[in-house]
Amino acid sequence: MRILGIDPGLRRTGFGVVDAVGERLRYVASGTVVVPANLGLSQRLKVILDNLREVAGDTRPDVAAMEKVFLNTNPASTLLLGQARGAALCALADSGLEVHEYTALQIKKSVVGTGRAAKEQVQAMVQHLLSLDGRPAPDSADALACAICHAHAAPLADRLGGLGALATPGRARMRRGRLIALS
Amino acid sequence: MRILGIDPGLRRTGFGVVDAVGERLRYVASGTVVVPANLGLSQRLKVILDNLREVAGDTRPDVAAMEKVFLNTNPASTLLLGQARGAALCALADSGLEVHEYTALQIKKSVVGTGRAAKEQVQAMVQHLLSLDGRPAPDSADALACAICHAHAAPLADRLGGLGALATPGRARMRRGRLIALS
Repeated sequence: MRILGIDPGLRRTGFGVVDAVGERLRYVASGTVVVPANLGLSQRLKVILDNLREVAGDTRPDVAAMEKVFLNTNPASTLLLGQARGAALCALADSGLEVHEYTALQIKKSVVGTGRAAKEQVQAMVQHLLSLDGRPAPDSADALACAICHAHAAPLADRLGGLGALATPGRARMRRGRLIALS
Repeated sequence: MRILGIDPGLRRTGFGVVDAVGERLRYVASGTVVVPANLGLSQRLKVILDNLREVAGDTRPDVAAMEKVFLNTNPASTLLLGQARGAALCALADSGLEVHEYTALQIKKSVVGTGRAAKEQVQAMVQHLLSLDGRPAPDSADALACAICHAHAAPLADRLGGLGALATPGRARMRRGRLIALS
């Protein structure tokens, strides 16, 4: 099963692709869509839409996972984040992907073992779990953590149904599938 | 100039298409995308995305206009609305349309003459300004009002640049371009 994890945001949207082969995890790609701040809102959303569709087209995941967002106390920020999240969800739905949602607490528990983990702990555990040579950038790490959380949460039947249990993932070299910086 | 107005919402998204020919307005189409509540979030957003893309493809507007949203006091509602709005903006950007945004106050002032107009007054004025035989439904009326507001606000040069000033719009029969009810 190939999982595309997304950490949506209007300025930066992280993505991470992970293969779950039986109990094993294998890193495929990750990166950050950096959205130019000088564009109008609909064009900024289109940057997210286009780039995530391209990521999905290039990596051909079986399923997607996204973090349930933190409700900002500032309503205007919540609205902006909602719009970015809407664009990301549209890209996934447009790519025919079912989207599973997890809270930050669920993701941290699943990846680090405690819901109170710091950002650096998440990065370190993602590096460890995916046998990466380097530490992934924060947005990529959050997206990869989300994909890993789904790998842990998805029923065993689903996990065995995908790629089969024969492939033996080697130690992956940290490779950025795409780092999109348009600003 | 053909204007597509949108009144976005996760349950119901209204749309209305209006031609602005010189100082005159001509009704083209309007309707409501009714989103089934039993779908998952990404699928609900895809209903908005797909249907608005289809409306844009069928009616071929030159530009789009959308109401700036009311910031709900409930953050969860604001997030949901933001996501629906993000999907609508994605559909417009995907269709190559520039999107102009107006506050509810601007729209009411432009259509009714006062920012404190009731919903029924907006419906009545939309009916009057577009010479419709019947009163448009609330979501359609809001979307049409948004398109009318852009017609009034767009510079004269833009308005003359589109369809030219020769066509004389007749009295339009109220016609629903599309009423999408999937629930």
